[in-house]
Amino acid sequence: MRINRFLTHMEEIGLKKVAILNSTNINYFLGKYFPLFSVLIFEDEPILYVGELDLEYAKENFNIRVEKFPGWKVLENCDGVEKDFPIELLKYINKEYKIVSPKIEEMRAIKEKDEIEKIEKAAKISDKAMNYIIDNPEGIEVEKAIEIEYIMRKNKALKPAFDSIVISDKKTSFPHAFPEEKKIENILLVDIGANFEGYNSDITRTIILKERKEYKEIYNLVLEAKEMVEDYLMEGVRVSFLDYKVRKFFRDYSKYFIHSLGHGVGLEVHEAPRVSMKDKTILKENMVITIEPGIYIKDKFGVRLEDLYLIKKNGFKKLSKVEL
Amino acid sequence: MRINRFLTHMEEIGLKKVAILNSTNINYFLGKYFPLFSVLIFEDEPILYVGELDLEYAKENFNIRVEKFPGWKVLENCDGVEKDFPIELLKYINKEYKIVSPKIEEMRAIKEKDEIEKIEKAAKISDKAMNYIIDNPEGIEVEKAIEIEYIMRKNKALKPAFDSIVISDKKTSFPHAFPEEKKIENILLVDIGANFEGYNSDITRTIILKERKEYKEIYNLVLEAKEMVEDYLMEGVRVSFLDYKVRKFFRDYSKYFIHSLGHGVGLEVHEAPRVSMKDKTILKENMVITIEPGIYIKDKFGVRLEDLYLIKKNGFKKLSKVEL
Repeated sequence: MRINRFLTHMEEIGLKKVAILNSTNINYFLGKYFPLFSVLIFEDEPILYVGELDLEYAKENFNIRVEKFPGWKVLENCDGVEKDFPIELLKYINKEYKIVSPKIEEMRAIKEKDEIEKIEKAAKISDKAMNYIIDNPEGIEVEKAIEIEYIMRKNKALKPAFDSIVISDKKTSFPHAFPEEKKIENILLVDIGANFEGYNSDITRTIILKERKEYKEIYNLVLEAKEMVEDYLMEGVRVSFLDYKVRKFFRDYSKYFIHSLGHGVGLEVHEAPRVSMKDKTILKENMVITIEPGIYIKDKFGVRLEDLYLIKKNGFKKLSKVEL
Repeated sequence: MRINRFLTHMEEIGLKKVAILNSTNINYFLGKYFPLFSVLIFEDEPILYVGELDLEYAKENFNIRVEKFPGWKVLENCDGVEKDFPIELLKYINKEYKIVSPKIEEMRAIKEKDEIEKIEKAAKISDKAMNYIIDNPEGIEVEKAIEIEYIMRKNKALKPAFDSIVISDKKTSFPHAFPEEKKIENILLVDIGANFEGYNSDITRTIILKERKEYKEIYNLVLEAKEMVEDYLMEGVRVSFLDYKVRKFFRDYSKYFIHSLGHGVGLEVHEAPRVSMKDKTILKENMVITIEPGIYIKDKFGVRLEDLYLIKKNGFKKLSKVEL
């Protein structure tokens, strides 16, 4: 159980009382989606503090001691906090404190069975929306984004995992562009995800509507890069090596690959590990990461292809299943 | 201009360098919705730091000096931060610092023309969805929530302002209930909002599907409470007085009024002022607040009615316009 593993960790590094305020971390330890105000205090016996209105619900649904939040005095004597602990509450905790976020990030990076099931379900939902748009790529960007989100919601997504990216033509050359009231004409980039019970998916496809030699060339290059990386995708491989391999594969085009290769996905769309040149993490079984090579030719067009992978001992299971 | 007003405030209280990290506050100062990573540093000349990818966009769209984020050394010598400044960055700023959030909350509470226009637009969008559900109240809770969000998106909402509350029958007695795969039968409570270019709306209606004496009695009591409060809604009135008046009006039923009367709305769905017993804020022209009395009879049913108001010198303008 996650809570007990964290308590063991606290003992190992000599922490007596840790406060968890970040709602994503609280959801992780509870194993349930709970979007309302709460504070989780790890001491000999962990306690979840909630608002008076939510006492009954929390007691019935969470396998942990629950109490009414009595104010910030619950933080007294805390010697461990998260990295985003707010400065205004600093006065309540010990002068000497440790930041426990790296350990929680490390724990969250390796998914348990219930987490994998939820991510798989989220991936199935975004697959449905992606298959719809592949079959119906013509129209207005923002209207397509709305259709996608509607399909995901209809298939039991709580919400989109992030603001859906449905961009076309010249705009595909800018990874941070957003959908507008613009007609889709020649090439379409769709980067979407679903949130299912708190867990996210993430998938990108680039759809060529008007065949052009330059589109096809770049598309194939990106596709080959992704397939090449898959050969190395397994426990024991360093993530920075994957990023390096893709940049090397792209040769002269590597200057157009202007973001990192991927990222962990779970309760957050971007979480540990970052699959980048700078991240030294070694892949472990049951990590879930994206691989998303892309080439962006400024003021012309861009291509990105992204899938979601569950890392296994000797390979991977692809969680997004939309055909390329 | 908001930035200049804040610089004047810094001078008044003797601050030399303030770091704004909270993206909502950054949007406020920019006057534009910008959901990507950025840091705003107020010094003699304010600077917005953004990621390399977003440099060009930011320079073209924001009326402020823009630079590439060079790392957290930008925080060096900061003597002012927000209340949610993360503890992990504490080492970069001055040992002596002030928290500037109360001033920003006070500024944000009083809306400027461009902000009011966006909130009005958001309110029109949620009105459309609410009118739809009033005309079509039968069905499954979660399916109705999905329809509502689809209508709001189709009418140019960026997203729902919050997870839509569409709950029926016994569940209406619990203000924090959420939509499920449940058939709507006797009474329906709908609490929704739209986000338009970063600004939010918030409206609640309770719809009686099967006429019952107890429904009607409580409904009328809540409606009268809301109408009674409107007589006091104008510049110069203390918000705690409004909350007090409603509790007094409810008499024996006041024990079933288990939340505060309302809240400010703007870039956040809940922002200053809280319209509660504890908040001593005096209403000022151009504040935007909700008034949402409710009575919740445990395990039976609940009624809440909520509208959105722009405060004026001698009264208010109701921004939500769905008929009661």
